[in-house]
Amino acid sequence: MVKVVFEPDGRRANAQNRETLLKVAQRVGIAVRSECGGKGTCGKCRLQISPESAVTPPSQAEIKHLTAQEIQMGYRLACQTVITGETDIQVMVPPESRGTQRRLQVEGITIPITLRPAVHSVFIAVPPVDPARPIPDDERLIEQLHQYYGGKRGYWIIPLHVRRKIPGSLRAAFGHVTVTLWNKRILLDVAAGDSRNNQFGVALDIGTSKLVASLHSLVTGKLLAVAGLENPQIRYGEDIMSRLSFAATDPANRLVLQNLVVDSINLLLARLAKEATIALDNVYELVVVGNTVMTSLFLGLDTKHLGYGPFTAPARGPFDVSSQALTLSLPPQANVHVLPCVAGYVGADAVADILATRIHRSRKISLLIDIGTNSEVVLGNRDRLTACSCAAGPAFEGAQIEHGMKAVSGAIEQVTIHPNTLEVEVNTIDAKPAIGICGSGVVDAVAQLAEVGLLAPQGRFIEHPTTKLLHDQRGKRFVLVEGGNTEVSQSPITLSEYDISQLILAKAAIQTGYKLVLDQHQLKPSDLDKVFIAGAFGNYLNPASAIRIGLIPPVPIKRVTFVGNAALAGARLALLSRTHRLQATRLAKSVQFLDLARHPDFNQTYTSSLFLPKEVLG
Amino acid sequence: MVKVVFEPDGRRANAQNRETLLKVAQRVGIAVRSECGGKGTCGKCRLQISPESAVTPPSQAEIKHLTAQEIQMGYRLACQTVITGETDIQVMVPPESRGTQRRLQVEGITIPITLRPAVHSVFIAVPPVDPARPIPDDERLIEQLHQYYGGKRGYWIIPLHVRRKIPGSLRAAFGHVTVTLWNKRILLDVAAGDSRNNQFGVALDIGTSKLVASLHSLVTGKLLAVAGLENPQIRYGEDIMSRLSFAATDPANRLVLQNLVVDSINLLLARLAKEATIALDNVYELVVVGNTVMTSLFLGLDTKHLGYGPFTAPARGPFDVSSQALTLSLPPQANVHVLPCVAGYVGADAVADILATRIHRSRKISLLIDIGTNSEVVLGNRDRLTACSCAAGPAFEGAQIEHGMKAVSGAIEQVTIHPNTLEVEVNTIDAKPAIGICGSGVVDAVAQLAEVGLLAPQGRFIEHPTTKLLHDQRGKRFVLVEGGNTEVSQSPITLSEYDISQLILAKAAIQTGYKLVLDQHQLKPSDLDKVFIAGAFGNYLNPASAIRIGLIPPVPIKRVTFVGNAALAGARLALLSRTHRLQATRLAKSVQFLDLARHPDFNQTYTSSLFLPKEVLG
Repeated sequence: MVKVVFEPDGRRANAQNRETLLKVAQRVGIAVRSECGGKGTCGKCRLQISPESAVTPPSQAEIKHLTAQEIQMGYRLACQTVITGETDIQVMVPPESRGTQRRLQVEGITIPITLRPAVHSVFIAVPPVDPARPIPDDERLIEQLHQYYGGKRGYWIIPLHVRRKIPGSLRAAFGHVTVTLWNKRILLDVAAGDSRNNQFGVALDIGTSKLVASLHSLVTGKLLAVAGLENPQIRYGEDIMSRLSFAATDPANRLVLQNLVVDSINLLLARLAKEATIALDNVYELVVVGNTVMTSLFLGLDTKHLGYGPFTAPARGPFDVSSQALTLSLPPQANVHVLPCVAGYVGADAVADILATRIHRSRKISLLIDIGTNSEVVLGNRDRLTACSCAAGPAFEGAQIEHGMKAVSGAIEQVTIHPNTLEVEVNTIDAKPAIGICGSGVVDAVAQLAEVGLLAPQGRFIEHPTTKLLHDQRGKRFVLVEGGNTEVSQSPITLSEYDISQLILAKAAIQTGYKLVLDQHQLKPSDLDKVFIAGAFGNYLNPASAIRIGLIPPVPIKRVTFVGNAALAGARLALLSRTHRLQATRLAKSVQFLDLARHPDFNQTYTSSLFLPKEVLG
Repeated sequence: MVKVVFEPDGRRANAQNRETLLKVAQRVGIAVRSECGGKGTCGKCRLQISPESAVTPPSQAEIKHLTAQEIQMGYRLACQTVITGETDIQVMVPPESRGTQRRLQVEGITIPITLRPAVHSVFIAVPPVDPARPIPDDERLIEQLHQYYGGKRGYWIIPLHVRRKIPGSLRAAFGHVTVTLWNKRILLDVAAGDSRNNQFGVALDIGTSKLVASLHSLVTGKLLAVAGLENPQIRYGEDIMSRLSFAATDPANRLVLQNLVVDSINLLLARLAKEATIALDNVYELVVVGNTVMTSLFLGLDTKHLGYGPFTAPARGPFDVSSQALTLSLPPQANVHVLPCVAGYVGADAVADILATRIHRSRKISLLIDIGTNSEVVLGNRDRLTACSCAAGPAFEGAQIEHGMKAVSGAIEQVTIHPNTLEVEVNTIDAKPAIGICGSGVVDAVAQLAEVGLLAPQGRFIEHPTTKLLHDQRGKRFVLVEGGNTEVSQSPITLSEYDISQLILAKAAIQTGYKLVLDQHQLKPSDLDKVFIAGAFGNYLNPASAIRIGLIPPVPIKRVTFVGNAALAGARLALLSRTHRLQATRLAKSVQFLDLARHPDFNQTYTSSLFLPKEVLG
């Protein structure tokens, strides 16, 4: 019995004499690529083994698929290599030999993903200079890289920063270097020794209100750290329109907004690296999503003409830009990939939402609503997708509500009003004493008030003997929590008619969006097989309440799925798989954009959405 | 009789009714491309004309080769367009339609060149946004560019800085923009209106002692300005070895040297722009030559291993780097093209020398000596070229000579000693009173002293009754100009045995070089059809004197040609013609490098060169 250790995962297996390494790997769940099924004809199951004495000598198939140098470095084909001795074996599974189906966890959905990042690295040995024929350092390196790829690739791009490292790296470990490549074409790093495990990437969602980023190993796909920050551009306006008008008044203002977001991203990057105890020097790619205004401001594009009709995007993307051009604190040659947008107001975040929910791959009809300050609605299936954008405002995030607050400890997130006693029961986050109410609590409260008959469709309170209504100069207010019960203040926590009107305006914007895209596809709510609710807010929302107020179309609740930050999940997919990245590029061009502002039925639909539905079938 | 004005040259022609524009253009010497000889089948003779009413309507051939939009913009084929009216016609000849053989003047040689720069520009009209289908600005632009090239090119790279300009430029002149392209692939600029004439480029030679740059129109090839500066790295050593050792002691020192040269280049660029009254914003390319140490330091490459055997170059090149990466004061996306080197000590300057002298195209055997602090020697013809490098030091530039000075006003540049009277006659630059002696004067003096028998082959003075020899504690000195005759000082201008030994050391280095390359090709001096002498110094050198002291091999004087700064001339060729640029890339790999330091006969040859030849056959 021989022990086999598979790196970089470190998974261990007990193996029999005469077993092939492919079989051993498969038995312990390491999916090594094997297009030919182990016949030795595809050459995909390359592994690097040590010691070579523990296995059979190279077969004819191996001699055909591997160069002499590779064989010397211990490279073998897993299907051809048979365990012969009693010696324990160490096996390195290079990224290009992996075929693992991994699963990316997102709230509510699980995304199968085959790891296929744009960044990967190879370990090669570059012979020293021959004094009789002193070939420049970069050419000796490229020659070996060429051989590694079987002489098939002839076009390499070496950024200046990487070229500067080559002479030193070649001499630090006797010519053994790890070359990190982007799309098998651009050299992102040449480091002395074997650093194939030190390949990291970051996925980033630039939201109008919040930035969220996650750090991943590009070798295993593993999530290593997550960090979030408020979007500092908020000081120039809560919504994208205010920021656009600030940017349009002076080209210098555009730079102000760009610098703010870049500084915050650098802060996020530092936090991620600290949490995962890795060096930012080994972060080779950043994949970015966001709405078109956010990604354009991040890239410093001219957003002047995004601010008024026909709201033309300066550029669609995808963009691949060096970190240096954006003054990010990554290696200067690291790649920044910004996913493409569909239109001026349907951004890369919507494209990422689609990637994460896979509605573009499904035969079933799905509706996706990404709720945020700027909300996106996407409808369709693999045959046809239509998207629109709705200016919902920040009401769902607790803003513009008198006792509104973000979804943090002490926020009321659930409200129940007993239909008979009209008694109010609230649940707070972390079961702390209530200090305010967050978006999901407001939706719950309004839905419950309507359901028990205390709220008319226009959003006016209906008087009732037992109702806890306060009347003051600011109008009528419903008491959710009595004064004195709260830790922070002696005054009660209330919901006013004004608060409710804010919520109705916000939901009307989204409702108009899904109504008009349904019209566009000549579909009714009952035709929807799936409704995906994305956005940080979505997770805590009661779907019945959301349906009750019209924020979600009336569908059976089991068809509703909360997918959390699907935009970030989509960014992760694009970070870890070039296949998804390619799909994003295709989606950006194939998704149809429905311009609500120019839609002939917009006014009528919007006006009719400024009411709470009388009753709904859940 | 109709007047036709050809832009951008402004050349005027009188034309007959029924003449084709091709004939008119050819008559006034404007070489319009016409691969098919005017049959209308190649489509290369595109011109833009105004007004269209003055010529025949588009022929079938024109409809085939031009898009509808192009025809609308006044594009026509010169061979198909016949003058019909009496109206004067204005014709724009776009760069891609030019086939002009131009001549680039270099001292002593004239280089025929077909203008084919990597940078060229096109003028297109981009339609406004269709509100029903608001396509992003960059895509609308690319769509028109695509059409301009007949739908044949699909891959465009838009640097971030250019992308930022697009929305504004598209709206400033009703969609009319000039797109500047690099290698028909990278967009270097998108400017509102027609700025096709504002395309400039700079050729730069980074010499160990001096930087020289010239500014050219990339539309006409015309030389607009020249400027030079001392290489500021000189404070860290006169020769490349001292600078290498300074750079190797600390990575920060490499940056010091890089910043010094970049700052000087920025100074040169500002001077060039001022002299030609153009904006640096319209300088889209800088082509750089220099020895391998100079170009490597300019790019910030790791030169540590260039300092000792086997003197491996960090990289060969050619390099195409954005101006931004080097903090040059050009547009950030401007291209910096650094010509490739042959080896660690045979640099891009030697490659440029070959380009300028065309020795790689000739059947005849040529020897090229580029005299400088670091001198290059190239031998061969189109079948085989061998190059080596010689550390001559700065003696030829007047350094290390007691009364030595640079070749400026008042420097003795010519010395004659009458064989009978031994009377000394000197000529100074600008015929000013002598204040010192420059390199060519030293060579002349030593040759004349040897010729009249006052100097032994070892460089020792031979006493003679009439000789004006001074003896002092510093040894023997020959008086060239009596004291009191000079304006600046009362003391005489002399040449000492020490001075002569410095000159002999310098010429020995070069002599060893050409002797060993001649040996390598099994050739004798008499086999040489041509001897090219390059280097700023070369122009004023008396070839007979240079042969007399052994600096040049003994060949008939008429075979010797002075080509001045051939390295800069080669850089200009690479700037103005992609054909030459491609040749440079091929040359860098095909020229054989002869490593003198490792040559078994080096010591013997060098020792035997430390003498003045006893007599020479001129």
